[in-house]
Amino acid sequence: MRFAISKTALVLAIQTVSKAVAVRTPKQALTGILLEVREHELIATAYDLQLAIQMRIQSDEHNQLTVLDPGSIVLPARYFSDIVRKLPDTQITMQVASNYMTEISSGKVQFHLHGIDADEFPELPKFLGITGAQIPSSTLARLIETTAFATATSEVRPILTGISITCKNDELTFIATDGLRLAKHRVVQADLPNWEAVIPGKSLVELAKILPDNDEPVEIYLTPSHSLFVCGQTSFYTRLLEGTYPDTSRLIPTSAKTELVVSGDEMLGAIDRAALIARDRDNNMVRLEMEQDAITVSSSSPEIGNVSETVQVLQRQGEDLQIAFNARYVMDALRALNAAEVNIRFNGPTQAFVIEKTGDSSILQLISPVLWR
Amino acid sequence: MRFAISKTALVLAIQTVSKAVAVRTPKQALTGILLEVREHELIATAYDLQLAIQMRIQSDEHNQLTVLDPGSIVLPARYFSDIVRKLPDTQITMQVASNYMTEISSGKVQFHLHGIDADEFPELPKFLGITGAQIPSSTLARLIETTAFATATSEVRPILTGISITCKNDELTFIATDGLRLAKHRVVQADLPNWEAVIPGKSLVELAKILPDNDEPVEIYLTPSHSLFVCGQTSFYTRLLEGTYPDTSRLIPTSAKTELVVSGDEMLGAIDRAALIARDRDNNMVRLEMEQDAITVSSSSPEIGNVSETVQVLQRQGEDLQIAFNARYVMDALRALNAAEVNIRFNGPTQAFVIEKTGDSSILQLISPVLWR
Repeated sequence: MRFAISKTALVLAIQTVSKAVAVRTPKQALTGILLEVREHELIATAYDLQLAIQMRIQSDEHNQLTVLDPGSIVLPARYFSDIVRKLPDTQITMQVASNYMTEISSGKVQFHLHGIDADEFPELPKFLGITGAQIPSSTLARLIETTAFATATSEVRPILTGISITCKNDELTFIATDGLRLAKHRVVQADLPNWEAVIPGKSLVELAKILPDNDEPVEIYLTPSHSLFVCGQTSFYTRLLEGTYPDTSRLIPTSAKTELVVSGDEMLGAIDRAALIARDRDNNMVRLEMEQDAITVSSSSPEIGNVSETVQVLQRQGEDLQIAFNARYVMDALRALNAAEVNIRFNGPTQAFVIEKTGDSSILQLISPVLWR
Repeated sequence: MRFAISKTALVLAIQTVSKAVAVRTPKQALTGILLEVREHELIATAYDLQLAIQMRIQSDEHNQLTVLDPGSIVLPARYFSDIVRKLPDTQITMQVASNYMTEISSGKVQFHLHGIDADEFPELPKFLGITGAQIPSSTLARLIETTAFATATSEVRPILTGISITCKNDELTFIATDGLRLAKHRVVQADLPNWEAVIPGKSLVELAKILPDNDEPVEIYLTPSHSLFVCGQTSFYTRLLEGTYPDTSRLIPTSAKTELVVSGDEMLGAIDRAALIARDRDNNMVRLEMEQDAITVSSSSPEIGNVSETVQVLQRQGEDLQIAFNARYVMDALRALNAAEVNIRFNGPTQAFVIEKTGDSSILQLISPVLWR
């Protein structure tokens, strides 16, 4: 293996795939990055057996990739990444000498790094003969960003650590829930196949980080065990979660005893401040009181003190109400909606309530109240 | 106690004094910030018994301080700081109600925070009738920044965790050493009294962070047990270290068998890269070889690989040399010098070597070689 490349292109490839490098594993090859050099092409891959990220670089005038000898090697990710980032020159040449020792040169510097036989690197899941769906990159990123935070962090019910993805009648729906809150985001998208899958939330969060914020199409492929997202030169593989995702459709209330419209920012600010006094051990409990045209957000703690704040009501309908909730859940929901105005629909102090962007029901946030402390 | 103030002014005061708030202590008042309100003046103080920081705010049109009732209170630092930072309005009013419960209001928000009796707060060290010295703020900051990193981090010899400060014949000298390297910075300054003190390095690092980067004078006062630095409205108290600082003057070589001049940046880059392969457990050992007009910086590790880089020699005199050193020490020294060109003076592979800015001997960095691994 022998090639030359611009530092910028190599740094980008290493950065992109690094999130899939295994951290703790007895299998040394998984802590490395696989480099495969073919005619006019360099492929960088990392794979921790859950998640694989692969980036292709095809020779062009920007990346200045010049392949002298095809071949492949696995290099220890941390050292390789640190070394390339700190190389002094804009041009890098690499070659494998005997015994997997790899020479990395730039300007007057020459590194030799112990590599590992590329045959030790695991094969990626196969996606041959599968038809893909297409969706714009920014839409996919937004679907992830508005739901992933609501996945369970504990492994008590592993299926809840995933995001449930359903494609049906040209509607794509992402659902996440940890049992105390639920986030659902639905978009209409033409030419989608019908399928269902539960993908680990953590993997999708990593995918969202590398998706460009534009309309570039992302191709999505599915097998019974894995999914593959292809965006430009980057491929993102993740395994699916096994098991049946719970049917959450009956949880979402269709009517409301109290409905109100408030400024998203003002509500977020008030709850953020009230949360300063609320304690973790009390479920970050913050209270909301509605009496006629006033809303009060408050919290108290015997040791610390208390806080109370009025929030302007833009519109309201229905009964007066006192309810308590976990401040963190409502803040997560409001941040995900990122809306100037939000509608909140309540069904009394013991029922879950719904938050949506005013005039837009594509994203729904459902939150269980806290009943006592 | 009752007063109004602009949010900006109160946030700045809390931020400034916060570094002296005690983290772990059974005495609750030390985890708080003392607020003392007098006519036209608010004084914020934090004191962990090692370090005290005090900031005065005198009423003016910027801070909009309006005192309605003088008085004082101690508020829990973390909550008080978080609350004030997140208040919605630019104006804040505060008042102590019964039982040290303190009301903090801004816009439509009202916090009540449990305070502590101001009498529980320890008294600051006294500096009555002492004559001070004066030195420009940026000069003092630079004296700290070029030496503090060389103090000992272990408490094996507590005196070495301090910076030795000597004032003699209008020369002010800062010295720090951890036994393996030494940093010395000397400035000429008129009208200095003659004195000596050893001040904890950590305290001075905190002081450097709040010193403005300009010529504003800092007044320095000394008692046998404490020092006081006053800069504008901020007072910074720290205890002195007890004991005798070692006489380091004999350690500094006055001649050199090999002397060379190199670019500070190029040398720093080469050592930084070589350090990627050097291991902590081997004292971050990097080798330097001088043969005729070439210098090579290199390091190697049986598990990782090796690196070698040539550095351009701008000037050299004396014998050829091979020497090894701790990369971290030399990088610290070069960063502190921050010089386009540096002179390095060696006396063979087993003697400590000196690094100075070319043409400027005010700052001296002395580093012990690593003899083996």
